[in-house]
Amino acid sequence: MIGFEEIRKLSHKSVSRIVLLVLDGLGGLPHPETGRTELESARKPNLDRVARESICGLTDQVSPGITPGSAPGHLAIFGYDPVKYSVGRGIIAALGIDLKLGPGDIAARGNFCTVGGDGTITDRRAGRISTETNAELCQLLNENIVVSGAELRATPVKEHRFVLLLRGEGLSAELADSDPQQVGLAPKRIEALSTSARRTAAIANEFLSEARTLLQGRIPANMVLLRGFSQHPDIPSIPDIYKLNPAAIAIYPMYRGLARLLGMRLLPAGEDITQQLETLHRHYEEYDFFFIHHKSTDSRGEDGDFEAKVHAIEEVDDALPQLLNVNPDVLLITGDHSTPATLASHSWHPVPFMLRGKWCRPDPVTEFSERACISGGLGRFPAVDIMTLAMANALKLDKFGA
Amino acid sequence: MIGFEEIRKLSHKSVSRIVLLVLDGLGGLPHPETGRTELESARKPNLDRVARESICGLTDQVSPGITPGSAPGHLAIFGYDPVKYSVGRGIIAALGIDLKLGPGDIAARGNFCTVGGDGTITDRRAGRISTETNAELCQLLNENIVVSGAELRATPVKEHRFVLLLRGEGLSAELADSDPQQVGLAPKRIEALSTSARRTAAIANEFLSEARTLLQGRIPANMVLLRGFSQHPDIPSIPDIYKLNPAAIAIYPMYRGLARLLGMRLLPAGEDITQQLETLHRHYEEYDFFFIHHKSTDSRGEDGDFEAKVHAIEEVDDALPQLLNVNPDVLLITGDHSTPATLASHSWHPVPFMLRGKWCRPDPVTEFSERACISGGLGRFPAVDIMTLAMANALKLDKFGA
Repeated sequence: MIGFEEIRKLSHKSVSRIVLLVLDGLGGLPHPETGRTELESARKPNLDRVARESICGLTDQVSPGITPGSAPGHLAIFGYDPVKYSVGRGIIAALGIDLKLGPGDIAARGNFCTVGGDGTITDRRAGRISTETNAELCQLLNENIVVSGAELRATPVKEHRFVLLLRGEGLSAELADSDPQQVGLAPKRIEALSTSARRTAAIANEFLSEARTLLQGRIPANMVLLRGFSQHPDIPSIPDIYKLNPAAIAIYPMYRGLARLLGMRLLPAGEDITQQLETLHRHYEEYDFFFIHHKSTDSRGEDGDFEAKVHAIEEVDDALPQLLNVNPDVLLITGDHSTPATLASHSWHPVPFMLRGKWCRPDPVTEFSERACISGGLGRFPAVDIMTLAMANALKLDKFGA
Repeated sequence: MIGFEEIRKLSHKSVSRIVLLVLDGLGGLPHPETGRTELESARKPNLDRVARESICGLTDQVSPGITPGSAPGHLAIFGYDPVKYSVGRGIIAALGIDLKLGPGDIAARGNFCTVGGDGTITDRRAGRISTETNAELCQLLNENIVVSGAELRATPVKEHRFVLLLRGEGLSAELADSDPQQVGLAPKRIEALSTSARRTAAIANEFLSEARTLLQGRIPANMVLLRGFSQHPDIPSIPDIYKLNPAAIAIYPMYRGLARLLGMRLLPAGEDITQQLETLHRHYEEYDFFFIHHKSTDSRGEDGDFEAKVHAIEEVDDALPQLLNVNPDVLLITGDHSTPATLASHSWHPVPFMLRGKWCRPDPVTEFSERACISGGLGRFPAVDIMTLAMANALKLDKFGA
């Protein structure tokens, strides 16, 4: 198997540019009435035009049948075996809001939530409270909670989300979540997953207990949930592996965080795909790899709103000419996983993929869809091969062996 | 994953015969004017007829996006993971001219080259001097260079190519090349890649320094370049793994060398595909596996001569009836990598493959081409699976497990 060690030796700088557009949760399933998936239902002349000029395929991010989280889904696209390289949810959340993390620091993703009189969760997102309310509540927690053995700090993200940072000597991230991931259950006590994590578990549980007291009565945000305790992983960077000078144009904190972790520069992304593509134009000469992340395809899929997901795809198609007119040497359009609106969640279904470039050996595919990509020249392939294919098509890889 | 250990247990001798025809650099890219690849442009009724009777597919030799050198490309076809089993360029060159190598011997591939007054390379191949001139120059080097600590011997190959053999106690092959692989740069001093290789590096550098003095003024061959220092690798043989009695009908030294390394008998190959197939007929009863190597598809691709590569394919098609009339139990036709004429170099594009045999479960493919093979029954698959498929179709593999 080719690994980073070989890629590092084979890759070299060149003038060509790679643009990767990720439509989060792109893949879908047929609508029960029409038999057509979200992609097949969308009016998307520009995506179809790119498909005709591309080599197409379907990717498995982790392995057939495995539903990827957002981090593994993206790690695979960037060439990182998502089983080998795991990045905790807490770390990604922390990086996304620019928290500086020391080597021993532990981050957890937090939610303000609503619990009923019996202590069970009635809303895991506390009715998506405003970011302002969130900031006030974080301040309340920070000013009132003191736990011996660690410095704790909650930092607000968007709406109901926050990051809890734990700093101190000898802490361990081997902790289970307090978030049971469903309503009707009570928040769990945090369990140590190893004996060396027992003290940290006690610290986290003390935080939860004090938070419950402080938030009492502040409905809808009367409790917190914690998950994804993690430390900064030891992970090679994209500039190191691929000799690229990469930039990310992502709006959502988590994807910005992941991009930063992998060594990308974060560019101002604005508020929608049109503004993201303006950024691409403005900075096109400065980088040789661009990661553009579009979130709403996934969000509308998660909402279970088929029509809205179709619309989110059409929104990208409408903006696409603005991307095509920079004429990237290599253009990749794909997703990080499927989020079929009929399932209203991430899924294991392989993800449509297309790569356009001067040397791409186009195939007979004339449409960008799950069904059409089955007949693509790339076939069904592991997403971890995407970056190598991109590098090859950009003529940035030397020959392997004599 | 199935490895040699399992294959060794499952394989058994039988009367069936396998013929593998490798068209070097077979895969291509569309001509910018016609949109058709070299294979798609060739008149090839016989190859197409075989495709109709075959199961087809596209192979990745190393990994998607990775451009294989000739050795990894072939090793994969014979079932050897080309990342695990690497064979140095020097060893392949030595084997190709039948040099006997002892266990501690080191071989390097040499080029006579031209350097200018400033010491930089102006021609890496010294204007492709004649093989006769090459032989005289090797004699000059051998008669005049004496380095303490090792016996050195240059043996001419074709044109500007030679093999340098280093024999002595405690030598190490962990040496970088002196060949910078491009004109305009000076030949490099040979660096030791480990401390234990320092003495060997000094020996090699002394050889280079004396060669420079001896060749001074002998333009165009006034210097030498060395690369691919290597020792005989520890690699299992085809007879050992597959219980086959294999023969190679290859014209070019490098492929003969590789075949010998893997335990094949070398048969007289003559000068073209017609003579190679005469050899096949003559020895058909003596072996149960034949590797026939056709070079010109790659050479014309490397030349960037689209029409000539088309012609090289047609040449094989014309000769094919001569192969078909031995009616091999299993016939495989493929390449070791792609060499698109438009790129004029090896490339990463997957390679058309077909396997014909009584038990092959044919697919709907009616033509032998990159595009048609996408829809083949084998799909896109790793080239390291080719031998196992060949063995299975020859009914030479037992059932795995109870």
